[in-house]
Amino acid sequence: MKKIAALALALTLGAAVGAKDARAQSTLRDQVRSWRAAHEREIVIELAGLLALRNVASNREDIQRNADQLMGMLRQRGFATRLLTAGDAPPAVYAELATPGAKRTVVFYAHYDGQPANAADWGGDPWKPVLRTGLRGAPGTKDMEILEAVASTAPFDPEWRLYARSASDDKGPIVAMLAALDALKASGVKPSVNIKVFLEGEEEAGSSHLPAILKAHQDVLKADAWILGDGPVHQTRRMQIVYGARGVTGVEMTVYGPNRALHSGHYGNWAPNPAVLLVDLLASLRGPDGDIRIAGFQDDIRPLTASEKAAAAAMPPVEDDLRRELGLAWTEGGSERLQDRIMQPALNLRGLKCADVGAGARNAIPTEASASIDFRLVPDQTPGKVRERTEAYLKSQGWWVVHEEPTLETRLAHPRIVRLTWDEGYAAARTSMDLPVSKAVVKTVEEMLGEPVIQVPMLGGSVPISLFLQGLPSPAPPILVVPIVNHDNNQHAAHENLRLRNLWDGIDVFAALFARLSW
Amino acid sequence: MKKIAALALALTLGAAVGAKDARAQSTLRDQVRSWRAAHEREIVIELAGLLALRNVASNREDIQRNADQLMGMLRQRGFATRLLTAGDAPPAVYAELATPGAKRTVVFYAHYDGQPANAADWGGDPWKPVLRTGLRGAPGTKDMEILEAVASTAPFDPEWRLYARSASDDKGPIVAMLAALDALKASGVKPSVNIKVFLEGEEEAGSSHLPAILKAHQDVLKADAWILGDGPVHQTRRMQIVYGARGVTGVEMTVYGPNRALHSGHYGNWAPNPAVLLVDLLASLRGPDGDIRIAGFQDDIRPLTASEKAAAAAMPPVEDDLRRELGLAWTEGGSERLQDRIMQPALNLRGLKCADVGAGARNAIPTEASASIDFRLVPDQTPGKVRERTEAYLKSQGWWVVHEEPTLETRLAHPRIVRLTWDEGYAAARTSMDLPVSKAVVKTVEEMLGEPVIQVPMLGGSVPISLFLQGLPSPAPPILVVPIVNHDNNQHAAHENLRLRNLWDGIDVFAALFARLSW
Repeated sequence: MKKIAALALALTLGAAVGAKDARAQSTLRDQVRSWRAAHEREIVIELAGLLALRNVASNREDIQRNADQLMGMLRQRGFATRLLTAGDAPPAVYAELATPGAKRTVVFYAHYDGQPANAADWGGDPWKPVLRTGLRGAPGTKDMEILEAVASTAPFDPEWRLYARSASDDKGPIVAMLAALDALKASGVKPSVNIKVFLEGEEEAGSSHLPAILKAHQDVLKADAWILGDGPVHQTRRMQIVYGARGVTGVEMTVYGPNRALHSGHYGNWAPNPAVLLVDLLASLRGPDGDIRIAGFQDDIRPLTASEKAAAAAMPPVEDDLRRELGLAWTEGGSERLQDRIMQPALNLRGLKCADVGAGARNAIPTEASASIDFRLVPDQTPGKVRERTEAYLKSQGWWVVHEEPTLETRLAHPRIVRLTWDEGYAAARTSMDLPVSKAVVKTVEEMLGEPVIQVPMLGGSVPISLFLQGLPSPAPPILVVPIVNHDNNQHAAHENLRLRNLWDGIDVFAALFARLSW
Repeated sequence: MKKIAALALALTLGAAVGAKDARAQSTLRDQVRSWRAAHEREIVIELAGLLALRNVASNREDIQRNADQLMGMLRQRGFATRLLTAGDAPPAVYAELATPGAKRTVVFYAHYDGQPANAADWGGDPWKPVLRTGLRGAPGTKDMEILEAVASTAPFDPEWRLYARSASDDKGPIVAMLAALDALKASGVKPSVNIKVFLEGEEEAGSSHLPAILKAHQDVLKADAWILGDGPVHQTRRMQIVYGARGVTGVEMTVYGPNRALHSGHYGNWAPNPAVLLVDLLASLRGPDGDIRIAGFQDDIRPLTASEKAAAAAMPPVEDDLRRELGLAWTEGGSERLQDRIMQPALNLRGLKCADVGAGARNAIPTEASASIDFRLVPDQTPGKVRERTEAYLKSQGWWVVHEEPTLETRLAHPRIVRLTWDEGYAAARTSMDLPVSKAVVKTVEEMLGEPVIQVPMLGGSVPISLFLQGLPSPAPPILVVPIVNHDNNQHAAHENLRLRNLWDGIDVFAALFARLSW
């Protein structure tokens, strides 16, 4: 998942586990783990084979090779497979495995494309997997060729890591799903749901065709829930279940001074200074404490439920450590918790630019000043509504809003001109924790792991769950995120890696979801 | 003069000219002009010879050659000459010519060093003077070698321009002074004052040794007034007399957020945003209309006199044209005139920088945000007092002021930290228009020209007149600026030039100041 990164999250205790369920789950756990322990080499070889395929979405030949290989891997497990396409987008790999008598159908999502990578940054080919006995660069860490490691009879240490582009983002979860099915089959355990698999081929390129693909294949994709296998687990290494994420929309703002830079001595405090105007504009939008002053901005906020508040309150108190680590004497919102803050909308000033500072500063009144803002949205805010309210508010503050470079006539007619350039953005999404499927997923995972998972009502970071909502029938089936990979996986960067322990845990989790999920 | 540039200034009428004075002045004017008309070739040759000497202050051999040549030119006119030095600074050329019976002594200042220049920008050697029949690039303009022009018998057109580095800034005024003395001698007119000449050799390099040179030679430089022959006339081409200039001091400000950039989704409205803090700080310093909110900032302002207000009010109404030209629908201070505004202190926000905007913007909470400010000062503000008041004000607003990069301990201890880096700056200066010498200079120039001059109580731009005040005995003799060169002289840039009409006018003005000034 593109934007689920290191995030401090809290623990929430699931429902008490009934004695019988616990026994059944403990049996399943033993079965899956003993199968996995006996097949670690095969699992790693299958994943390494998939990782050896270059998978940047813009290279259609590479993408097709990945899709072909995945179709083969799925067919081996008894899936009926096909490619789902829309226009010239990289195809989604689709597969289904019916479970006779099953009442529910669940789509398991992952993506097989990866971020671009280059050999210089990696110190080697990013698509040539390497097993390391620990974190790259840590003292005593040894590199092993995959075949060398597999040939050795020494047991795999679960702290070893598999290094390659997409090891964790997001091919690891795909192989975890397939290995989980192998483990179930070997143990004679029948799935509890109809399983559909949807593997996207352009997630790292922005998923721009995802809504069209989903829309074009609504019948095929009919389901009672979606489970997204993407993103990292909590930084404490504990499993988490994520119900939503903030949306996002960005705007570039430029305000204007004289149409050529003026000597600040000869014209300073006569000619209007665009940097000062920008400061005035920005100060009117939000305060230092995070309060957003745009009229009506809060109107579209869907209130948090009691479960969501409780889940947030149950998070472990990471704030003091974070503050110390980041060198912060305070945080916005006073004593409010991090999770409480990021379940509210935010206006982040991500950049300022006007002429130059420091050695490059000139004694001049600049011609223009710019700010860049990203808004983080919560349900039921939309980029369109944020744009509308922001522009209305700026007009109410005396600004003349334009979307193109103002002409001389416009400049002469309006004292305060701001040019706005909005990006498309997308809305937030938050699946209710109180739905039966939500409770069932938590129960299933907790019983399998034998310990509570962290429940995250909404990530602060933005994940385009709303792209799913755009493509799926309305009302859309519930969407939950069940991440399995380590948080320290160098996602999107050089030396992306997957810790074997997380791959093993993922197999447990997907096996449980395939075999025990019911609601 | 480094910083006197295009500036809209007004007309003030001098005192009515008495009939007898007018007659005497009209005789002097005729004498000077007829001598000049007969000697234009010699004057241009002498100036071209001086312009042929490279004169960047950092090249001591070049500078010495200029100084030697100037000493020779001055001795030819009967001056006693010497070099005034301090440390290893480029020497000032000093010369004096006593006038038996004269009651007053006046130092005439100019500088002989020039801005760096390169052949690529000029399309030829900047120190190889060329006469052009008009503005470079204008249709029909012809270039002439100096010797070719001089050899021809055609009369010189006063719209011709002499192109070379320092033609106008500031060797033209030096040659105008010397030619004026030649004209007086040829006409049998005795000076009215003791004349001292002080030619600085590092003005374009910042005049950093000027106070030391003045201080070391206070006895030699004893005088009743200084007249600075530097800077351009008004852009209407009318002569102006300037009484002062704003001072200047600059400060770089940096405020701090988290010590590494944070994902704005995961941490946005929890981790403090330095750009937002900077906006809050800057909004507290001044308003969009130019009002400076720093407590006590206005305390040191010396009130304007009735004469100064009257001179400002008499300026021609250039504001509407300027606004149209600059694309401005309004100006700071409402209907206040430009000259009234620039006689007040200013806080100019000359630059902003924080992360990036536009295509380079990232969805992150930045680590720091910076602003660059130049303050324009008026008498009797000083850089030291501005610094003191600004820092006290910021502290009163809850800022922890530091002058070095804050340590982690400092960051953890103080919520709002601002790092300030001040430049040295210098104070404003304003000679009273009501002094007898001020009135005498105006009267002398107006009688010579037969028309009123524009009187500028204070330039908005900063000129380091305060460096003179630092070096001269206290109380310092009055200092006035009498510019002669054309405003469109490309000062400091490629294709610097001097319009011959301005050189001729300058000879008139200096002749009058040498021969008629008395108070």
